[in-house]
Amino acid sequence: MFRIGVDLGGTNIAVGLVNDKFQIIQKKSLPTGANRESEAIVADIATLCREVCAAQNISIKDVDGIGIATPGIANHDTGVLVYSCNLPSFLHYPIADTLKNMLGAECGVHIENDANAAAWGEAVAGAAKGTKNNIMITLGTGVGGGIIINGKIYSGFNYAGAELGHIVIELDGAPCGCGRRGCWEAYSSATALIRMTKEKIEECAASGRKTIMADASKVSGRTAFDAMRAGDEAGKEVHDKYIKYLACGLTNIINIFQPEVVSIGGGISNEGQSLIDAILPLVAAERYGGNHVPATELRIATLKNDAGIIGAAMLGA
Amino acid sequence: MFRIGVDLGGTNIAVGLVNDKFQIIQKKSLPTGANRESEAIVADIATLCREVCAAQNISIKDVDGIGIATPGIANHDTGVLVYSCNLPSFLHYPIADTLKNMLGAECGVHIENDANAAAWGEAVAGAAKGTKNNIMITLGTGVGGGIIINGKIYSGFNYAGAELGHIVIELDGAPCGCGRRGCWEAYSSATALIRMTKEKIEECAASGRKTIMADASKVSGRTAFDAMRAGDEAGKEVHDKYIKYLACGLTNIINIFQPEVVSIGGGISNEGQSLIDAILPLVAAERYGGNHVPATELRIATLKNDAGIIGAAMLGA
Repeated sequence: MFRIGVDLGGTNIAVGLVNDKFQIIQKKSLPTGANRESEAIVADIATLCREVCAAQNISIKDVDGIGIATPGIANHDTGVLVYSCNLPSFLHYPIADTLKNMLGAECGVHIENDANAAAWGEAVAGAAKGTKNNIMITLGTGVGGGIIINGKIYSGFNYAGAELGHIVIELDGAPCGCGRRGCWEAYSSATALIRMTKEKIEECAASGRKTIMADASKVSGRTAFDAMRAGDEAGKEVHDKYIKYLACGLTNIINIFQPEVVSIGGGISNEGQSLIDAILPLVAAERYGGNHVPATELRIATLKNDAGIIGAAMLGA
Repeated sequence: MFRIGVDLGGTNIAVGLVNDKFQIIQKKSLPTGANRESEAIVADIATLCREVCAAQNISIKDVDGIGIATPGIANHDTGVLVYSCNLPSFLHYPIADTLKNMLGAECGVHIENDANAAAWGEAVAGAAKGTKNNIMITLGTGVGGGIIINGKIYSGFNYAGAELGHIVIELDGAPCGCGRRGCWEAYSSATALIRMTKEKIEECAASGRKTIMADASKVSGRTAFDAMRAGDEAGKEVHDKYIKYLACGLTNIINIFQPEVVSIGGGISNEGQSLIDAILPLVAAERYGGNHVPATELRIATLKNDAGIIGAAMLGA
């Protein structure tokens, strides 16, 4: 069995050929050129699909399924990309049928929102494998969410759901890209962590307080974590604040869904088990049901950047 | 077709005989005596079941299904009431089997958390009838939630989910009965509205500001709404603040689930369409997906206090 997963991003298109062990055995990519016409972008996807097959000496006819993970609102019933702010030419665009026709493919071609596809990847082949009700949270530029209920991706009647980063956790709080204020994303994304870290560095500079987080221009999502581990008090303050917001949002998710597993992916998840260890006591103290029911497990996502390709490949499988 | 719905509350047990038009054709109730032994309480439920049948000249053998809506965590797969702070003697108690045995019933006996059962009632026979993905929010003493996904009640792998009132919308905010701070329930329940109204009355008294909301001891969930309608500025301030929190929480729910319908029940929903009209512009401005996708409809729940009985009766149907 071979399947193809397409990760159509605002910057790059990555296409992978996936085997029946959920491994990507061939991967190729091209820049998206996101402002081009949709046909030109889909033609590049088709080229990459042909190339990953050719490199493994197989034909498109041998492929059992193709899936495309797209940003924005993807109608997984019709294969129409409804809207994506990152891909302006794809408004109500039948991307699945177009790719199928370009390839002359006989297998099913499916689409899904990228965060949902990544969650599906973790559910089928990653951290949440073997569970039927699970959630994935991606802590990257934003906070992404994917919901798996009864073994199926859930995205609402209009395919726009699972926007778990856009739950307000602080009314009238920090502005969010979505237009609301105080969204979880505005506190728990890597972007937010960098903002908090810079603010702390500037605060220290203004008050003459010492911190090893010296240069605000070189801050990354690791700076505060690294500083804390090196014993820096200011770094620990940023870390603790970040963890508090993260635990608040995760506890919200648990109180809503009580899933078997919440997988945590994205750049911040590279902190690994120590991230989980920091969150767990706060979640345990506040989650609904206390010791009367088994608790949701928090796990670090395992597929990393391949989650979207693998999840896309496994759509409809 | 006849079914029996049991609404087992901390104060009263209400039992209804429901016909195939989802109408309660006979209803009887008794005080719960919540601190009694579980057997004694279930025996009273059995008595009420027999009485509603006897009053309509039918036998328990003619009943096609019995459902019990309970507070707390109800395992709908085993019929075991796992935990309810309002019914201390029901810890891991097989309430469905016990009732079935006491009645000698041959039909299925099901249980469900009361907020979920009410949501099921609205989904099957009320405001959300005809939709497969819908949510019910109950604005009463607390804020209750019930989630229907793909035509089924969703309550998580441990049956403790759908606690939609216990989503923090204001980090470190007002204390909530659940132990967290800043839960939606602490701002959008009738209890919270009464608190906000009293605070405003006291604020007015302290500053010599005039308001028709004169007596803090007589405040109800209607006081601020009535005052606003009578042109009272302080009443309008309370109303607007309450609506802002309510819209924030509802927008969270929509961004998570994008359901076809959110039904709003509980005492505050007696305000009717004017409540929806006040919320809608705030939700429309902030919900994810904007005009690119069809919007969730907000509706006033229609079954009122009967939602729990009707929903319980229709469990397993």
